[in-house]
Amino acid sequence: MKTNQSWGGRFAEGPREAVARYTDSQTYDRALYAQDIRASQAHARMLGRQGVITPEEARILAEGLDKVRAEIESGAFAWKPELEDVHMNIEARLTELTGDVGKKLHTGRSRNDQVGLSFRLFVADRLEVWRQRAAGLCAVLVKRAAEHREDILPGCTHLQPAQPVSLAHHLLAYAWMFRRDALRLGDSLKRVRVSPLGAAALAGTTYPLDPQSVAGEVGFPEIYGNSMDAVSDRDFVLEALFDGSAIMMHLSRLCEEIILWANPAFGFVKLPDGYATGSSIMPQKKNPDVAELMRGKTGRVYGALTGLLTTMKGLPLAYNRDMQEDKEGFLDADRTVESSLRLMAGMLEELTFRTERMREACKAGFLNATELADYLVGKGLPFREAHHVTGQAVAAAEREGKGLEDLSLSELQALEPRIDSDVYAVLDYAAAVRRRETPGGTGPRSVARQLEQLGQWLADWDKA
Amino acid sequence: MKTNQSWGGRFAEGPREAVARYTDSQTYDRALYAQDIRASQAHARMLGRQGVITPEEARILAEGLDKVRAEIESGAFAWKPELEDVHMNIEARLTELTGDVGKKLHTGRSRNDQVGLSFRLFVADRLEVWRQRAAGLCAVLVKRAAEHREDILPGCTHLQPAQPVSLAHHLLAYAWMFRRDALRLGDSLKRVRVSPLGAAALAGTTYPLDPQSVAGEVGFPEIYGNSMDAVSDRDFVLEALFDGSAIMMHLSRLCEEIILWANPAFGFVKLPDGYATGSSIMPQKKNPDVAELMRGKTGRVYGALTGLLTTMKGLPLAYNRDMQEDKEGFLDADRTVESSLRLMAGMLEELTFRTERMREACKAGFLNATELADYLVGKGLPFREAHHVTGQAVAAAEREGKGLEDLSLSELQALEPRIDSDVYAVLDYAAAVRRRETPGGTGPRSVARQLEQLGQWLADWDKA
Amino acid sequence: MKTNQSWGGRFAEGPREAVARYTDSQTYDRALYAQDIRASQAHARMLGRQGVITPEEARILAEGLDKVRAEIESGAFAWKPELEDVHMNIEARLTELTGDVGKKLHTGRSRNDQVGLSFRLFVADRLEVWRQRAAGLCAVLVKRAAEHREDILPGCTHLQPAQPVSLAHHLLAYAWMFRRDALRLGDSLKRVRVSPLGAAALAGTTYPLDPQSVAGEVGFPEIYGNSMDAVSDRDFVLEALFDGSAIMMHLSRLCEEIILWANPAFGFVKLPDGYATGSSIMPQKKNPDVAELMRGKTGRVYGALTGLLTTMKGLPLAYNRDMQEDKEGFLDADRTVESSLRLMAGMLEELTFRTERMREACKAGFLNATELADYLVGKGLPFREAHHVTGQAVAAAEREGKGLEDLSLSELQALEPRIDSDVYAVLDYAAAVRRRETPGGTGPRSVARQLEQLGQWLADWDKA
Amino acid sequence: MKTNQSWGGRFAEGPREAVARYTDSQTYDRALYAQDIRASQAHARMLGRQGVITPEEARILAEGLDKVRAEIESGAFAWKPELEDVHMNIEARLTELTGDVGKKLHTGRSRNDQVGLSFRLFVADRLEVWRQRAAGLCAVLVKRAAEHREDILPGCTHLQPAQPVSLAHHLLAYAWMFRRDALRLGDSLKRVRVSPLGAAALAGTTYPLDPQSVAGEVGFPEIYGNSMDAVSDRDFVLEALFDGSAIMMHLSRLCEEIILWANPAFGFVKLPDGYATGSSIMPQKKNPDVAELMRGKTGRVYGALTGLLTTMKGLPLAYNRDMQEDKEGFLDADRTVESSLRLMAGMLEELTFRTERMREACKAGFLNATELADYLVGKGLPFREAHHVTGQAVAAAEREGKGLEDLSLSELQALEPRIDSDVYAVLDYAAAVRRRETPGGTGPRSVARQLEQLGQWLADWDKA
Repeated sequence: MKTNQSWGGRFAEGPREAVARYTDSQTYDRALYAQDIRASQAHARMLGRQGVITPEEARILAEGLDKVRAEIESGAFAWKPELEDVHMNIEARLTELTGDVGKKLHTGRSRNDQVGLSFRLFVADRLEVWRQRAAGLCAVLVKRAAEHREDILPGCTHLQPAQPVSLAHHLLAYAWMFRRDALRLGDSLKRVRVSPLGAAALAGTTYPLDPQSVAGEVGFPEIYGNSMDAVSDRDFVLEALFDGSAIMMHLSRLCEEIILWANPAFGFVKLPDGYATGSSIMPQKKNPDVAELMRGKTGRVYGALTGLLTTMKGLPLAYNRDMQEDKEGFLDADRTVESSLRLMAGMLEELTFRTERMREACKAGFLNATELADYLVGKGLPFREAHHVTGQAVAAAEREGKGLEDLSLSELQALEPRIDSDVYAVLDYAAAVRRRETPGGTGPRSVARQLEQLGQWLADWDKA
Repeated sequence: MKTNQSWGGRFAEGPREAVARYTDSQTYDRALYAQDIRASQAHARMLGRQGVITPEEARILAEGLDKVRAEIESGAFAWKPELEDVHMNIEARLTELTGDVGKKLHTGRSRNDQVGLSFRLFVADRLEVWRQRAAGLCAVLVKRAAEHREDILPGCTHLQPAQPVSLAHHLLAYAWMFRRDALRLGDSLKRVRVSPLGAAALAGTTYPLDPQSVAGEVGFPEIYGNSMDAVSDRDFVLEALFDGSAIMMHLSRLCEEIILWANPAFGFVKLPDGYATGSSIMPQKKNPDVAELMRGKTGRVYGALTGLLTTMKGLPLAYNRDMQEDKEGFLDADRTVESSLRLMAGMLEELTFRTERMREACKAGFLNATELADYLVGKGLPFREAHHVTGQAVAAAEREGKGLEDLSLSELQALEPRIDSDVYAVLDYAAAVRRRETPGGTGPRSVARQLEQLGQWLADWDKA
Repeated sequence: MKTNQSWGGRFAEGPREAVARYTDSQTYDRALYAQDIRASQAHARMLGRQGVITPEEARILAEGLDKVRAEIESGAFAWKPELEDVHMNIEARLTELTGDVGKKLHTGRSRNDQVGLSFRLFVADRLEVWRQRAAGLCAVLVKRAAEHREDILPGCTHLQPAQPVSLAHHLLAYAWMFRRDALRLGDSLKRVRVSPLGAAALAGTTYPLDPQSVAGEVGFPEIYGNSMDAVSDRDFVLEALFDGSAIMMHLSRLCEEIILWANPAFGFVKLPDGYATGSSIMPQKKNPDVAELMRGKTGRVYGALTGLLTTMKGLPLAYNRDMQEDKEGFLDADRTVESSLRLMAGMLEELTFRTERMREACKAGFLNATELADYLVGKGLPFREAHHVTGQAVAAAEREGKGLEDLSLSELQALEPRIDSDVYAVLDYAAAVRRRETPGGTGPRSVARQLEQLGQWLADWDKA
Repeated sequence: MKTNQSWGGRFAEGPREAVARYTDSQTYDRALYAQDIRASQAHARMLGRQGVITPEEARILAEGLDKVRAEIESGAFAWKPELEDVHMNIEARLTELTGDVGKKLHTGRSRNDQVGLSFRLFVADRLEVWRQRAAGLCAVLVKRAAEHREDILPGCTHLQPAQPVSLAHHLLAYAWMFRRDALRLGDSLKRVRVSPLGAAALAGTTYPLDPQSVAGEVGFPEIYGNSMDAVSDRDFVLEALFDGSAIMMHLSRLCEEIILWANPAFGFVKLPDGYATGSSIMPQKKNPDVAELMRGKTGRVYGALTGLLTTMKGLPLAYNRDMQEDKEGFLDADRTVESSLRLMAGMLEELTFRTERMREACKAGFLNATELADYLVGKGLPFREAHHVTGQAVAAAEREGKGLEDLSLSELQALEPRIDSDVYAVLDYAAAVRRRETPGGTGPRSVARQLEQLGQWLADWDKA
């Protein structure tokens, strides 16, 4: 067989470089530098307290790590690809700065539990930011809802106009979703904030460590009960990716509505300039690019979840190199989720609701048909008959291109003599909204309760 | 264009039947009959208390529903496909049994919130079963671990023997995973146990309902704050499917190990007859069918999660018919997750661990090399030199097909004169296990602590 | 530890029944009965030709299998769960009917290659049906397009009106998608139509079989080159599930448009009664249930693909029981894909396009703004200035709630004196459509070419 | 509400920068620079030929683009983030270099069809590389198989030893998989190599373009039949991601076997140093990092597929900004798939097969039990009895820790007197392999045929 086949191709790099590039992680795990340093400082101090190293050595290590962090943050740090990951880069520099003491930092730990703690710290930090962003978006929705308690629009099922609802109520549906996302993140954080340090490679260590105190110092209430579980558990990333997927799913629904509402057939919103692209010749035209892209980016977060679920399937105990694949998906999802929540809040803040278009649209959907039927039942008509008369009234109005409320009293009485002039109060769309005051309903008192509940939740947050 | 084209095909059914079959749900949502009846009884009693119907009517409805349930459970109930779903089937039969009173059951609610409550009750019931099965599996792992505290096997990283661990410790790693799954389910249940009743179609209702009392009666502590969110939220199913995916992922890892260990190259386990298929001519051969199928079924639960995430992406408010797709995926996942947890518990209960094979395997991996290096450091050799001598010893032992502990003292001393007869105690595999007593480590005291912690958790459960 | 713990639960079935139910496949693989019999008859005849059994025995087997098929199709066949799968059920019955001869059917094959061939035949049969349904849907799109060459509507990008297009052109975009799906299925079928028979359990067999002749007899042009690959390849199912996912994705896009267009804000379509659900009090209201459900069912086909990809990840050679999971996902996807294509064709056939609403909508979007700018450039204005003037004209028209074409000549000339009465021909929406005659464009000649190309493709199909 | 809430956070960037970063693509679509230039040059020359611009202008544009490419490849090109994407960056630089002529390049096309063509060219180029890599890996497998025709190992089903196979046969199973992948890519390329140019924004253009000639110049045989389909079709990326998923799935299976085989319990392979990480104190220990990471990376390619399928679900016609999400997933999958195929080829090239360990392992699995049973049938025993005797022989051998072939003739005759000394030839493992000569079987003639078929396929490739 020739060595030179067309399918053999030409490689830009030799096998050594190819393997190095394939297994490398320092290009992306640099993002964890602050967490790695924080974890290492806690480890060093614990080693000092436990007498594994001297208090002076512990001090030197902690201060050396401060210097490394400063170098990284000033841009002075020289990253070395051949040192493979962020952890080795930091440790090597620490040893340059502190000499033989630096080599003692790794006492009683292995890369497996070290990386595990750094990454858990990073995920915890980021989920905390997600929670804040979800609450921030909830706050914007609450604010905009409070401005639009009196405005009504067609509430849809099956994307067909069904009953009028207040715009406040519609917006608050999303506020509750993002509140739920924030609460879910809070639960997930309980499982992220567990320290694996002390597990060493997989079996624990022979050094007299105090893992609980390290956990406490970095703000984690718990440590893992079992070292093999500690170094091979990636549930916390999966759960984070699921939480992110739920957030993106909620955002995609809101994006879909913004995109629909920006179409002139609806015309319910005017997009803020900063979140749309325009056209010099069609000044009225604005493409909802941010909303579209956000809806589209739902896919990549779902993909990161699918990806890591796949990676973890069928792996035997304990650590396997496959697990290195836990980071890039999360880093990408983090960028997407955090910025999406933030941009949605910004976009909603500036979005103009064209409430007159919303009100007009109520008419097109005959959203007061249910009210007329209820009115007829109240006047003593049997249920079926009331429906039949309502159907005739709708058909008549549709023929004339009107709403039910535009039919004259004589037109209505021709259909059913029991109809009286009090019918017009019933046919008022806003009145239909006002009558729905069950807990959670679209009525104004129900909406006020929601605003209060959500406002209280946000206020408590603020105090916390 | 001909009407008779080959691509036009012949259809076995007309469009009407085809649509009916496509939109039908009663073939599968029958599974929810008990929850639907429970929810309807609570609704009827609340209508009675609120004066929407008379107390006598409420009693008739509740008793009529008891009769319907009895008919279903006895097999006497005649399901009618043309009634589309479980809810209409039950209501129609109730009306046959109770006459016009039956028609009043639906007062103040719509199919949207009714189905929502029934399905939430169903999911809550099943997740509770999952939690119990996860705890049950944890209990079996604890029991088997308690029997094998003294047995050791090679602990692997990268599927390469790394350090000896106790079999108890290895099994407990999984116990902690399933405990985590049970805790996660507990958190998810908080978001399942929220009642949407009162939301009606999407906007609430004009009837003076008391949704909180219905929720209380069916055992749900909360109601939805917003009716549009109530009828279009499917987060609770997604979260259940994610929890199920995490469980299957954990099971797939345990299955992988059982399958590996059943291969004669390992020979670490003997499969119980009931969980394997054999061969008449090879009595020693047993295929780990249940473990393989369980590992394979991980895919279908992941698939159900991906499926519903996809379905929910980009749906506008409020209810859309797409959401009917929430049930079949969960029903399938429920069958898989529940039976997998149960069968794994049963299989582990009967699994025979071939502990002598595990012990022998320690030798093949030179799992005491780290111990020798530490010993040499203790004797004063610099770290690098200690490693070098250890490497030579391993190479020598490998050449002779022995373990390090089988080298004679003179052989060892030829490599490094400071080695003394006390080295053999250090080279003992069990001793290496015993030395790892950090919290979470494989040492016997650490394992005892784990057994106690997990045992306490299970005991508290039992009391709850 | 008590045996009676709450988490221990009560099981409805013992372990033996639980395992049987877990590993069972006959409840669903019955769907393959015809393909199993076809494959077995071909195998029997080949055994006869090769002299492994006598010609008489071959005849008895083939005829016995005919009887079994007749029994199954008449409903007389007694399925036995304890025989696990469709193959064992058929073979057992064959042996009852033919005595010891029946036992010879399995000579030279194993369950692994037998199931493989039956399932490949089934998948090939179903993909052929999918191809026909895709072509059938394409044909309906072509037919409806041909009816609407003159009707125009706003072509959107970013769901914002951009340029007018003909309804024919819009519909044909989908026709091309489904044609592409049909072509892709044709390519996939090449990899489905490969026979694994002769691979036996995994290594081939010692009998002098002629696998190529069996393949030929069942209509497969090829056999597998390697027995281990033959029994463990599931690429053909994965590829089918991907093809199905692409089809559902295309359908979901069309569904989205139908749902949007059915909303009164657009009002572009009137749904056929058989494909929508109505309301007794709102006769104009129709929920697009079929379109919604179809869009939602996209998820389950994606899920089946994700599921099997997951199952196959990391499986060693050759057959593993995990692979049994290949069937249910495909069976479910098949029901979904086939019926979705069929129902979409039926729905489109009866859909009413409200072309006047479409035409009106062109105005709302100022879809002729580009034309005005081009006109001004033609009159000698520099590009930037032409854009500026157009922007002013649009702003003026928008203020008056008109289209550009409704501005008077004096209004236009006030903006730019070079505008003349010939501008109105340019501002005509239909004219803008007519000018776009590049290959693939929306112009009438381009549409005619498309109709011809697609019609020819369908006609060739018909002849094939 | 305070502006300063904790959940409000501090943003590192203002909304304008945040939106710019969110919608930016030039950080990653630079990868397409060569394809964009190639497409633009073809477009420019066509404009010249069609008289839309002068031949001189066409020449200036083509040469200017050559200069831009040279600048990019030399590193002299100044990328400007504010120009958003690769296409605008190139066009802006071209205009700097060529003045007003540069502005004419975009005549008759829009960003939608321009990006579409560049990306299709890029995907086509990369899939061609994948095909070559798949063939290259196939070639290495063929080469290694040719070296190991005589070596046997236990062929497994259910990861249980079943029948002996030759190592050549085992390796060729994978060769066939990667050949299938290459063929599938060839089919997919037909759907990638279709040019959308001429579709403009969505409706075609009024310029007299010749899209077919542009397609021909860039090497694409076809153009899109419909402009709306042209700008919104992403099937070609989805299909590429599916093909990549199938490749990774195959690789994950091979990785799994390498990882298992590297475990000392098997000891079937010795990993090449360059593809493993070692340990200074355990020279025999090598972690199969590359194989593990490759198995793990399967997830990210599946994830990219899931992601884009999700993104495309439910998008109305024509272009939507969501579709920008088509690139990053493919770019990531491309890096993974290409390097994985290449590294696997390199690793296999250097992998040492420990064939003596493989041969020994045959014994442990009693892989000749089937042969003994067949021998007994040949001696006249009824099938059931032959199995029974074989079972007894296996049990006896197992008790003594031997293989069947190690039992003495008298031991065997004690079980069944008809056994003679000719039995030992039958019990020979290699003989069992030699007897399986059906097409595709593990026998040496069948393997020779496979080597020839695959070799011929590769040779034809080489000529192509």
